[in-house]
Amino acid sequence: MAASRQHVSCGLDLHCVTDISNCLSFASNSGYQFITAPIVHPRFQREFILGKSKNRPGAFTRSDLLLTSQDWSSLIVGKLSTWLNLDSPITHIRKNSEQALQQELGYAAHLGLSAVLVSLKSGNCINLARCIHSRILASESYQGMFQVWVEVPMQAAEDLSEVYINQPESTEDSTVAKQIDTWDWWNTFRSVCNTDKKFGLALELSPDIPSEDIINRWMGEPIRCITVPTSLFLTNKKGYPVLSRAHQQVFQNVFKLGVQVLIKGVNRHESIRYYQQYMDHLWMSQPNDDTLAQFARGYEDYLQVPLQPLMDNLESCTYEIFEKDPVKYTEYQRAMYEAILDKVPSTEKDSRVLVLMVVGAGRGPLVRAALAAAKKAERDIKVFAVEKNPNAVVTLQNLQDEMWGSKVTVVSSDMRDWNPPEKADILVSELLGSFGDNELSPECLDGAQKFLKDDGISIPESYTSHLAPLQSPKLYGEVVQMKDREKPHITCFEMPYVVRLHNRTELASPQPLFSFHHPNRDEVINNTRYKNLTFHIENNYVLHGFAGYFDTVLYKNIKLSIVPETHSPGMFSWFPVFFPLKEPIQLKAGCQLQVHFWRCANRKNVWYEWCVTKPVIGPIHNPNGRSYTIGL
Amino acid sequence: MAASRQHVSCGLDLHCVTDISNCLSFASNSGYQFITAPIVHPRFQREFILGKSKNRPGAFTRSDLLLTSQDWSSLIVGKLSTWLNLDSPITHIRKNSEQALQQELGYAAHLGLSAVLVSLKSGNCINLARCIHSRILASESYQGMFQVWVEVPMQAAEDLSEVYINQPESTEDSTVAKQIDTWDWWNTFRSVCNTDKKFGLALELSPDIPSEDIINRWMGEPIRCITVPTSLFLTNKKGYPVLSRAHQQVFQNVFKLGVQVLIKGVNRHESIRYYQQYMDHLWMSQPNDDTLAQFARGYEDYLQVPLQPLMDNLESCTYEIFEKDPVKYTEYQRAMYEAILDKVPSTEKDSRVLVLMVVGAGRGPLVRAALAAAKKAERDIKVFAVEKNPNAVVTLQNLQDEMWGSKVTVVSSDMRDWNPPEKADILVSELLGSFGDNELSPECLDGAQKFLKDDGISIPESYTSHLAPLQSPKLYGEVVQMKDREKPHITCFEMPYVVRLHNRTELASPQPLFSFHHPNRDEVINNTRYKNLTFHIENNYVLHGFAGYFDTVLYKNIKLSIVPETHSPGMFSWFPVFFPLKEPIQLKAGCQLQVHFWRCANRKNVWYEWCVTKPVIGPIHNPNGRSYTIGL
Repeated sequence: MAASRQHVSCGLDLHCVTDISNCLSFASNSGYQFITAPIVHPRFQREFILGKSKNRPGAFTRSDLLLTSQDWSSLIVGKLSTWLNLDSPITHIRKNSEQALQQELGYAAHLGLSAVLVSLKSGNCINLARCIHSRILASESYQGMFQVWVEVPMQAAEDLSEVYINQPESTEDSTVAKQIDTWDWWNTFRSVCNTDKKFGLALELSPDIPSEDIINRWMGEPIRCITVPTSLFLTNKKGYPVLSRAHQQVFQNVFKLGVQVLIKGVNRHESIRYYQQYMDHLWMSQPNDDTLAQFARGYEDYLQVPLQPLMDNLESCTYEIFEKDPVKYTEYQRAMYEAILDKVPSTEKDSRVLVLMVVGAGRGPLVRAALAAAKKAERDIKVFAVEKNPNAVVTLQNLQDEMWGSKVTVVSSDMRDWNPPEKADILVSELLGSFGDNELSPECLDGAQKFLKDDGISIPESYTSHLAPLQSPKLYGEVVQMKDREKPHITCFEMPYVVRLHNRTELASPQPLFSFHHPNRDEVINNTRYKNLTFHIENNYVLHGFAGYFDTVLYKNIKLSIVPETHSPGMFSWFPVFFPLKEPIQLKAGCQLQVHFWRCANRKNVWYEWCVTKPVIGPIHNPNGRSYTIGL
Repeated sequence: MAASRQHVSCGLDLHCVTDISNCLSFASNSGYQFITAPIVHPRFQREFILGKSKNRPGAFTRSDLLLTSQDWSSLIVGKLSTWLNLDSPITHIRKNSEQALQQELGYAAHLGLSAVLVSLKSGNCINLARCIHSRILASESYQGMFQVWVEVPMQAAEDLSEVYINQPESTEDSTVAKQIDTWDWWNTFRSVCNTDKKFGLALELSPDIPSEDIINRWMGEPIRCITVPTSLFLTNKKGYPVLSRAHQQVFQNVFKLGVQVLIKGVNRHESIRYYQQYMDHLWMSQPNDDTLAQFARGYEDYLQVPLQPLMDNLESCTYEIFEKDPVKYTEYQRAMYEAILDKVPSTEKDSRVLVLMVVGAGRGPLVRAALAAAKKAERDIKVFAVEKNPNAVVTLQNLQDEMWGSKVTVVSSDMRDWNPPEKADILVSELLGSFGDNELSPECLDGAQKFLKDDGISIPESYTSHLAPLQSPKLYGEVVQMKDREKPHITCFEMPYVVRLHNRTELASPQPLFSFHHPNRDEVINNTRYKNLTFHIENNYVLHGFAGYFDTVLYKNIKLSIVPETHSPGMFSWFPVFFPLKEPIQLKAGCQLQVHFWRCANRKNVWYEWCVTKPVIGPIHNPNGRSYTIGL
C-alpha cells in the first residue's frame, strides 16, 4: 500500500551557487534529496581561443574540498554552462565552447558527480552530442563515469530557439506559436551517441500538455528526471502550490518509470519546501499497481531467454509460479465445462464416461480443473494425465494416490511417443508461449492428435500471434548488453526475448500474424508460415524492434489474451516477447512500415526470421536460425 | 597492347537442353567458353504441395554422370526454373516453389556448379532472396559454394511484370511504356541478403539505353555478366551481327569491370558463332588503359591501410614506386622554378645564394628537382635535405658525395627537432597523403616553419581535402572481409582505406572539406577542423561510404589534384581514400545527404570522425579515434 512506498526523489535546481555547502543545507532542510548546480559559476565565462585561457586570475571554479566525495557523488548534479555553443557556425565560438566543455566535464569527473545535466536549445546539437559522448567513451572507467541528463522541453513553440538566444533564462513569454517537435532534438542527440545507456532525458514539463501520442512517445524514452518550472504551479485555496489536473496526469505516467523530479525557477510561494511536499504527495497518491503489475515488479524491461519446455524440464518453482495465475485455470475450467456439456447431453449423462486427456500435465493444475469442471457439469470423466518431465510425474502420481484415485491415469511419456489404450473426446493442453506457437504447441499437438477421436475437441482450439512495432532505447540497450564474448555480435539481435515491456512506445496497434488450429485435419500438416504486415506510422519515431503477443480461443467464446487491447485482466502467466532489430530505423510521420516474418522448421528445430522492408529495406534477421532456434 | 589481351569470356544461353554433352560441344565449337542451362528441364515442373512429390516417374533431372566434375564446375551455369514463384500470395504456389527451389539449389551444389542464375521479374522477390541466401549461408563450405547471378534487365517498361507473367519467354514486344527502375528490384534482393559477396548481377542489355546516371549506377554494382539478347543485334552490310553504337558504348564501360558476356535468344544470323566473334571483337578493341589505369592494374578496389610515414619508415621499394611518377616531380620543379625566380630578381642573380630546404627529402627526388629548377633559372642555391629515415639518409649521402657536392647539405633529423644553421627562403615538402592532411603534413610543416624566413615560401602553399558519397557493395564487402577476430567488428568500419576506386558509383560531385595553408601565421595554430557537407541526391541509391581526394597548390597557379574532375593527367602517386559506413543507407531520389566530418587531435594522435545526419541520423564513426588514429 501507499504507506510502504518510498518517497519521491526530488531535487532543487540552483541557478547561482555562491556557497555550495550552505545551498545544500538549505535544499536538504527544505526536503530536497539533491541539487543541480552549475559546474562553473556563470560569471566565469572563459576565453580559450588564443590558446591562453583569458580567465580572471585564480581558479575557474570552487574547490572540491567544500564537500565530501560522498556528498559530491550523491547530492549534486552538475550543470554545464548555458553559454556553451558547440554548434556555432562561428569557428572561434565553437572552439572556445569545446574547450570550456572539456574543462567542465573534466571537473565533473574529478568531483565524481553521478550525473551532469545539459540543456538542449535546438536540434542543432550534433557537435555537442559528439563531444560529450567522446568524453564518456574516453573514460577508462566507463562504468564509473557520470550519467548525462539531456534536458529537453516536452514541447516548444516554433520560435523558441530565437527566444533562447535572446533571453537565455526565460521561456515563459513564448507566444502561442506553432509547436515544434522537440523530440527530434533529443533523437538527434542520442542517435549521434549510438543510443548509449549513459544518456538519459531530463524532460521539462511544458505549460501546455502535448497530445497523447506525443506523451506516449516520451514514455518510450529513458527519462531519468522530470523538470518542473515553478511557474507551472497554481495556488490552491490554502495558498499551497498545486499542479493542474493535466499536469498531474503526466506524472501518473512518468512515475511508473521511476523518474526523479527537479524543481526549477524562483520560489513563488511561501516556502520552497512546498513544491517538494506537493511532488511527494503526488508520488504517494499514485494508484496501486494491478495484479499483473504487482507480479511483474522488478521484471520491467528485464530480458529473459524464452523457456524451451520441450527440450528442457521445468523446475518446481517455475510450475509453482505459473499455477498461481488467478485467471488462466479458471478459464480453462470454464472451457472444459462447456466442452463436457456439449459432448455429453443430459440424456447420456448416466450412460457415458467421457475420456479427457491432459497432455503436458505438469504438476496437475489442468487435471484438477478438469475434475472440477466435470463435477460442476455432473458428468463422469476419465482423465489421462500425460507428462514427459519425470520430476513432475512424481507430483502427479502422489496426487493420484492421495486425492484423484481411479478417475485419473498418470502417463509418464512424451505425448509424441505415447500409445494410448483408447482415444480421447477432449484433448487439453497448455503448451503456449508468449508468442503463441513459440514453445512448439503446433508440433506437439500434431503428434498428440492421433489419440483424439475424429469428432474430438482440442482445448485450445486455436491461437494467433500478434506483432506491434516498438520504440525503446531501453530494450535496445539491454540487447546490446547481452553481447556474449564467445558469440558474434550479431547473435543477441537475432533472437526473441521474453520481457515485461515497460519503458517503450508502441508505434501502431498490434496486428495478427500466424494462426494455428487444432485438431489439424490438413492432408499434409505444415506449420511453417510466412506473412508480411504493414503498419501506418503517425509520428516521427525510432524503431528498435517488435513486441510479440498472442491470444487463444480455448473453446468457443472462451479466450485468453496478452494482446494489450484484449488482455485477460489479471492474468500474469505470460510476458510479451521482444524481437530486436540490429540497427534502429528512423521512421518519418506518415510512412508505411512493412515487416516480413517467417516461421521456419527443419527436422530438429523451429525458428523465426524477420526482415523490415519498408520504409527502408534491411537484412534478414536470424537466417537459417543461425542465432536462435527452438529445439523439437 | 590489344594483341596480348585475353579474349572475352562469352557464354551461350540454352533454353532447352536435351543432351547436355552435345550442347556443350556445339557451344564450344562455336567459340563459347560456357553455357547456361536449366538445372531441371522445364517440363519437369514438380508438385510438392501435398508432401508427396507428384513427379512423373524417374529422376527429376539429368544425371551427373553426363559430364565430368571439372566440366560441370567450369563450363555450366545452372539456371533456376522460370516458373518458380516464391513470392506468390497464394500459399500453395509459394510453398511448392520453395520446395522446388531447394531441390534445384541442392542439385546445383551436388554438381559443383560455380554459378547459378536466377531471373528477377519484379521487385516482389523478398522470399526468393531469403530462400537462396539461406541456402548459401547454410552450406558448410560457404567458400566453395556457387555464386548466384541475379539477372535483372537494365531497364524495363512499366507493364513488364505483366508481360512476364503472360509470356514468360518474351520481352521484346513490350510497348514503349513508362520505364520502371529495375535497380530497385536488385537493391531489394541484395539488401535482404545483407550485401553478401556471393551475389552478383547478370545485367540484361535492354533495347533502349538508360540515361548516363542510370548506367553509372549500375557501374557501382557487382556485375558478373552482361546478358545480350540476340534480338538486339543489327545486321551489317556483310550480313554479320553488330550492336548499335549506343550498345557498344555500354560495353566500353562494363568491360572495365571484367565482366563476362552471355548471348541469349534464337540465332538470327548465319551462325551462332558470329555473336561470340563480335563480342570478342568489341572486347579486343577496347581503348588502351591510360598511364594511371596501367599503374593501378591489379589494385582495383583493393583496400590498403594508409601509410604512416611519420611513425614508420618507408621501404626502398615504396620510394622507388613513387619516384617514378611522371607528373608530380615535374610540377614540383616548375613550382620551384617560379618561386626561385620570384625570390631572386635578375638584378640579384649573381650576388645572392638562395637557401632552399627539402623537409622529408626521402631518397632525393625533390633535391634533384630543386637543383634542376635552379639551373634552369640560372640562380645559385644551397639545398638542405632533411630526412628522418636513417635508411633513406644513406641514399642521400651517397648522392651528395657522388653527384651533388657542396650545393647540398644532408641532415639526418626529424624536421620537428632540427636546429638549422640559417633560415630558408623556400621550404619544400611532399608530405601529403591521399586525403591531403592525412599523413600529418600540417603538424610537420608547423614544426618546420620555424626555419623559414618571415617572407619565405612554402611549397606546397596550401591543400584541401574533398569528399564525395559513394555506392559500392564491392568496397563494402571488402571492408567486411577486413574483419579481424581480435578486434571488435566495428573497427574495420571506422577507418579510411587507400584504394583504387573501381566498381563504384559517385552519387554526387566531390565537395571541398578541410584546407590548410603554409606557412601558418595564426597566433595560435590549431589544426583541428569540423565541417558538414550537404549533397543533393538525384536518384535512388545505396550509400556505402565516402571517397576522399585532395588537391594542392604547390605555388601560385601550379597545382596537383586527384579530385576526379581536375585530376592531374597521368599522375599515379595517390589513390583516393574510402571512408566506410557501418550500415549501408538507402537514399531516395531528391533527398539531401548531410555528413559531418571532424579532424581531431591530441598530443599523440590525429584522427577523423564522421557521422551521416541526413536523410537519417546515424552514429558517430571512430569516436575518440577508438578504431584508427594517425600517430604524431
